[in-house]
Amino acid sequence: MLVNRSCNILIVGLGLIGGSYAKGLKKIGFNVSAIARRQETIDYALEHEIIDEGSIKPNPELIGKADIVVFALYPHVFKEWIGSYQQFFKPGAVLTDVTGVKSCVVYDIQNMLRDDVEFIAAHPMAGKEVYGVENADEKIFYGANYIIVPTDKNTPEAIELCREIALLLQFGSISTLSPEEHDQMIGFVSQLTHCIAITLMNCSDNEKLVDYVGDSFRDLTRIARINENMWCELFLLNKESLLKEMDKFLDEFKSLRDELAAEDADGMKEKMKISTARRALFDKK
Amino acid sequence: MLVNRSCNILIVGLGLIGGSYAKGLKKIGFNVSAIARRQETIDYALEHEIIDEGSIKPNPELIGKADIVVFALYPHVFKEWIGSYQQFFKPGAVLTDVTGVKSCVVYDIQNMLRDDVEFIAAHPMAGKEVYGVENADEKIFYGANYIIVPTDKNTPEAIELCREIALLLQFGSISTLSPEEHDQMIGFVSQLTHCIAITLMNCSDNEKLVDYVGDSFRDLTRIARINENMWCELFLLNKESLLKEMDKFLDEFKSLRDELAAEDADGMKEKMKISTARRALFDKK
Repeated sequence: MLVNRSCNILIVGLGLIGGSYAKGLKKIGFNVSAIARRQETIDYALEHEIIDEGSIKPNPELIGKADIVVFALYPHVFKEWIGSYQQFFKPGAVLTDVTGVKSCVVYDIQNMLRDDVEFIAAHPMAGKEVYGVENADEKIFYGANYIIVPTDKNTPEAIELCREIALLLQFGSISTLSPEEHDQMIGFVSQLTHCIAITLMNCSDNEKLVDYVGDSFRDLTRIARINENMWCELFLLNKESLLKEMDKFLDEFKSLRDELAAEDADGMKEKMKISTARRALFDKK
Repeated sequence: MLVNRSCNILIVGLGLIGGSYAKGLKKIGFNVSAIARRQETIDYALEHEIIDEGSIKPNPELIGKADIVVFALYPHVFKEWIGSYQQFFKPGAVLTDVTGVKSCVVYDIQNMLRDDVEFIAAHPMAGKEVYGVENADEKIFYGANYIIVPTDKNTPEAIELCREIALLLQFGSISTLSPEEHDQMIGFVSQLTHCIAITLMNCSDNEKLVDYVGDSFRDLTRIARINENMWCELFLLNKESLLKEMDKFLDEFKSLRDELAAEDADGMKEKMKISTARRALFDKK
């Protein structure tokens, strides 16, 4: 193991995901510190033993003793933070993140970063439709997918360290994708699904809907409760990939619509058979 | 109560939903019989004490002693069944059903039915992505929505009896809609969501998808495992309503797509705020 219990881990940004990292890592014995924007966040995290120490300022001492730094910030805030405070990093520190888009973040950060620290990007595919450290829960990672997103600049050691963090947090499957592959994949599996949930809820203003829906509508709209600032930023930063996925979805949906209009039962059944077979693969795991 | 424990209840069609009705009703003390197509189904249901007696034939004696008959058949089979065997009903029997479409079923059945029995339509908004009596589970109804679908021909007594069945099975919310309102609503909350799930799975043939998805994609595609014969029939029988809902969804989705293309952050955020506020109403219950 590259990561050992004497490592100091600093979490920058203590929301739902940052807080869940802190909780999971502290539980297994790491010294975990955090930098957050609001004093209430730090107070809550200290009181509930989610972190060992914390600050609302980019405290040079706290930053300087961290062996591993996990960034859980909005993409533009993440870049600004590195630009402003990277002089405080300990030489040899490894940085990682949880950002939902990669191409527009990873290269910029690696290009501006000091030579004696390394940034290895990662994306934990887990979340909840609630926010804040108060809802932090390390169990959201158990069995979930984790994507490591290295570039040519990354060393095998940093990639391995990133894998170890995922193993320690009990993620289920750990994969590796390039930044471009990641963004296309996330445009499909995450951003497109959020677009669909938002759209479904925008289709009807019937306040009694809740009395008529079944689990299918509930499931498809759970993620319609959405942090508009974060997701709007993520959509815009991944615009080209997301538009491609939205257009592909529109074409497929229109094809099903036209089959229904033409009463083409065979065409519809064929799509249903494909969806059944492909979705069945998910449940084997 | 109009329904009492000495009522004989006959279930016609012993799949997932029919079987779950049988299980729930037998558990609370009713004498429950069933007619199913396959002997294995009857044998399984008898062995597992889901029913008291059963037959693969439309046994006149079994039909003739039922005070309440619940039909859990494909729509076209349901109509054929009534046409062929209604002479066996006990005078005064109340018939109900679980069919997912109403306009194309309810009026036809009520028009062909003997004057001394009454059909009151209902739709339990519950299900699972598995089939057959082996998966029957009365708990799928607990807290779920139940829609009663009366017409001018129904008596207050039959409507009340239908309500009581829903209460006994522990449904959460019980509503009343006309057949036309029901079909439009179901086109939206149930059929449209299945169209979306099918389409999502048809968008990608990547067999490694399972390693990249988060809960959002899992949730949006759970219902993509679908019985193509049943759902194709339901879609075609509700074609006009479903097409209307598909077109409304397409317009809304395209509007979000165009806002993204134009980088209209305010427009996207407005939709996200609406979806968040509307979806939050679901979680108060």
